[in-house]
Amino acid sequence: MVKVETGEEMAGTATVFKVMPIDLETGEYTIILNQKDADALGLRSLDRVKVTASMESVVCIVELTGSVVMPGSVGLLKKGRQKLTVGQGDTVRVTPVTRPLSIELIKKRLNKEELSTEEIFVLVEEITNHRLSDVELSAFVTSTYMHPMTSREITDLTLSMVKTGEIIEIDAEPIFDFHSVGGVPGNKVTLIVVPIVAAAGLHIPKTCSRAISSAGGTADILETIANVTLPGWKIKEITETIGGTIAWGGGVNIAPADDIIIRAEYPLSIDPYSQVIASVLAKKKAVGADYLLMDIPVGANTKVHDLDLARMYSRDFREIGERIGIKVECAITYGGQPVGRNIGPALEVKEALQVLEGRPPSSSTLEKSIALAGILLEMGGIAGNGKEEANRILRSGKALSKFWEMIEAQGTEHKEITSEDVVLGKFSEPIFSSSDGYVSSINNKMLVRIARAAGCPSDKLGGIVLSKKIGHQVDKGEEIFRVYSSNEQKLKLAVQTARKLAPFQIEGMVLERVPAERVIHTI
Amino acid sequence: MVKVETGEEMAGTATVFKVMPIDLETGEYTIILNQKDADALGLRSLDRVKVTASMESVVCIVELTGSVVMPGSVGLLKKGRQKLTVGQGDTVRVTPVTRPLSIELIKKRLNKEELSTEEIFVLVEEITNHRLSDVELSAFVTSTYMHPMTSREITDLTLSMVKTGEIIEIDAEPIFDFHSVGGVPGNKVTLIVVPIVAAAGLHIPKTCSRAISSAGGTADILETIANVTLPGWKIKEITETIGGTIAWGGGVNIAPADDIIIRAEYPLSIDPYSQVIASVLAKKKAVGADYLLMDIPVGANTKVHDLDLARMYSRDFREIGERIGIKVECAITYGGQPVGRNIGPALEVKEALQVLEGRPPSSSTLEKSIALAGILLEMGGIAGNGKEEANRILRSGKALSKFWEMIEAQGTEHKEITSEDVVLGKFSEPIFSSSDGYVSSINNKMLVRIARAAGCPSDKLGGIVLSKKIGHQVDKGEEIFRVYSSNEQKLKLAVQTARKLAPFQIEGMVLERVPAERVIHTI
Repeated sequence: MVKVETGEEMAGTATVFKVMPIDLETGEYTIILNQKDADALGLRSLDRVKVTASMESVVCIVELTGSVVMPGSVGLLKKGRQKLTVGQGDTVRVTPVTRPLSIELIKKRLNKEELSTEEIFVLVEEITNHRLSDVELSAFVTSTYMHPMTSREITDLTLSMVKTGEIIEIDAEPIFDFHSVGGVPGNKVTLIVVPIVAAAGLHIPKTCSRAISSAGGTADILETIANVTLPGWKIKEITETIGGTIAWGGGVNIAPADDIIIRAEYPLSIDPYSQVIASVLAKKKAVGADYLLMDIPVGANTKVHDLDLARMYSRDFREIGERIGIKVECAITYGGQPVGRNIGPALEVKEALQVLEGRPPSSSTLEKSIALAGILLEMGGIAGNGKEEANRILRSGKALSKFWEMIEAQGTEHKEITSEDVVLGKFSEPIFSSSDGYVSSINNKMLVRIARAAGCPSDKLGGIVLSKKIGHQVDKGEEIFRVYSSNEQKLKLAVQTARKLAPFQIEGMVLERVPAERVIHTI
Repeated sequence: MVKVETGEEMAGTATVFKVMPIDLETGEYTIILNQKDADALGLRSLDRVKVTASMESVVCIVELTGSVVMPGSVGLLKKGRQKLTVGQGDTVRVTPVTRPLSIELIKKRLNKEELSTEEIFVLVEEITNHRLSDVELSAFVTSTYMHPMTSREITDLTLSMVKTGEIIEIDAEPIFDFHSVGGVPGNKVTLIVVPIVAAAGLHIPKTCSRAISSAGGTADILETIANVTLPGWKIKEITETIGGTIAWGGGVNIAPADDIIIRAEYPLSIDPYSQVIASVLAKKKAVGADYLLMDIPVGANTKVHDLDLARMYSRDFREIGERIGIKVECAITYGGQPVGRNIGPALEVKEALQVLEGRPPSSSTLEKSIALAGILLEMGGIAGNGKEEANRILRSGKALSKFWEMIEAQGTEHKEITSEDVVLGKFSEPIFSSSDGYVSSINNKMLVRIARAAGCPSDKLGGIVLSKKIGHQVDKGEEIFRVYSSNEQKLKLAVQTARKLAPFQIEGMVLERVPAERVIHTI
């Protein structure tokens, strides 16, 4: 272990400063010093100081200014002033302290050294407590991207993230869970899988996320018709009584370090491998999952772009799962085009309801949902042929009843909502095919860009309905998809984007003709 | 090249906001939006927007707030308000734009791909224009640390840093320059080398830096008796008329990207290899250097800790130098203990003057200075035996006259200053040996910590004078060094630090006795 103590005082003497309130908030405790005072104290930007007022003290990250804060004063942001209960003109004492241990630990990672269990815990704890600056967090994230953690390190990262957050202890056994690594648009299957599994008598406290780069995360989708912000005790209560829940993970404080790390990943849009695994498993471990089914969609324009990567994920999810006591099964699924017809929050909830009502608009959502639910039923020993059983539960109407029961318990006014009740964007416009032929490919990423141009995910009523999917025959001038939005201007922009990107490839059945002279003969 | 255009507008419509002034300054243009407005615009932290007011517009980095800035308003920091000439209650139009190209380029580096010449130029230009956030800069710095650039990339980085800054064109040929990679305390040789070389009739426009982690950079040292903040035209003028100058590099705008990059390195105290080379060579190229002598001190507690690393630096400085048209020679020097007797700004200028006056307090400063100056004289074809010639110039008093002439031209009131005129810290205290023996080692890093505890480099009068050096015989209770400070409290702290760290190792001449049975006989 490193020798320096976190926040160890470096100099014997504290310097007294007047407080100048700065109206800003950040996750971290920040103090702003004049350059001259900083020079006198030997402080530089991102050094740390202990700031003390009467009874309280807090370690702050130093930022410097040449003019805003005058010598003799320090700027304190909202968070620090609240913690210290000080305001304009009050005085605080400032003492330079050593930097967080984590900085040494991040440097170890930069030098490609392995971190011990204890070191990873220190790192995660300091991240959780907002002790690291953005620069330092970014270096950590970059290091895990460029030099992935070992399985042991990922295990420790996972468990440290669990320990430094809220843990929901559900009085039932075993606990089941489900997660999709995402990346394929229209993947509303969670809304169907969870009710089927709960209707079969299993316990599944599913937490889910909002969109980062997609047209809508499961939390965004369900939120169009139901409350998804539940405290931990409510997730516990609903799971214990009804069997299943679908709650927004951000509404509870499970694995908070993960959210902080993910924020640092966003500016560079990187998804370090080890973080993806630790992130998912920590959130499952925090709700006490014993069995977990992972959906890993594979396709050219998804997160997991080929089968080799999908298999690597499967292996590591299972291995790390075993190390932390979760039995993980992985389903590598087809992500070559969107799941089902609808993309966008309200549109996806509508299609999920259509499936639950027994009248799916296309087979892929139904197929995928019962296949995945079936695996969970088999893991739970409910049925020999899980998929058949899942289909039986769905057709019996029990999954729909369970869904209604679940969203009512989560706090929804509209009882027994149907797919007909779902409100869509006021404005819509069709996109037509510019040629005759067959749909040879659909670009997932382009569809997401169109849906986002239409306002998704913040416009919950916007999105896309596909009229055609891969393999379908299309005539020139026929509608291939339709764009929805609540805002006429945004609809226009989305239509422009659609015309520019052209996400559908329509070709004759013969894709390429290889002339005779180009054939190479091997003897 | 990447396809996205920097600052390309993403949506057709701009949104109007009221300006709320936030009293803070950063290097970058920053705008603070309420979370709700950001959601509506699909913006996240560190996204970019174009902010437009009447005639001017500027691309800003987005930061979010939940409460400080209300929906409908945007917080603008000082820099942005000045650029747009707006204040409280004025309105601005905000349009989301694509992120800087550099983010894609940094991601390429994270994926260990090589950047093209053009790409490196884009990256350096955007860094220079403060278009990157700290998180992004940190990822770049981390990537160069974990995956060093190729020689070609370092060359392009160097030239891009030159092109994006001020270039000083001196009307003389050839131009000589000198640089020490540093890391050894007491290394005041620049103050002696430059006047010798200039007195010999060569042109040497030396720019130097302030201390980052040392007790004093050359700029801090000379500043105790002379002005070092010179504009580019003044550096040109003095070099052309007098032959030599020693100016603070931060006073001119040469290779400004380097300073921005170095700031991002500080929080993690990393020194990526490629950046060290590019940083030095860019600053030399910007003053038009044709010949450069590099001093590379090697020792256990210096920056360059072993001979292999020193040789690697030598090879690369020479190679990249050749690529950019600078003939580089490297001198690997002894850094096992401080150079000379004195450490700290005023103390070092005093010792340098003593050497220039012909009465050095110890031989190492003199020896090193004339050896290095001698190499430059040989590079310039001034003498067959450069060291002898350098010594001759020094003894003739011409170097001292040149030094006086130089600092007078830089704007110094005190003409013909001598070592006796240099003021030292009011308070001092000796440190005594606790045993009889010989000085077997002196720890450079510990001495720097003591000098910094005494107030260096911001207290220019503080520091350390060594009474004993390696190999000297010491009696118990005899003074081994003395600590100086302007501040009694800081002196106390420095003395405490000295007692705790014990930077001197004093042992009998027999260091270890190997018993007979431990001797291994090889046949």
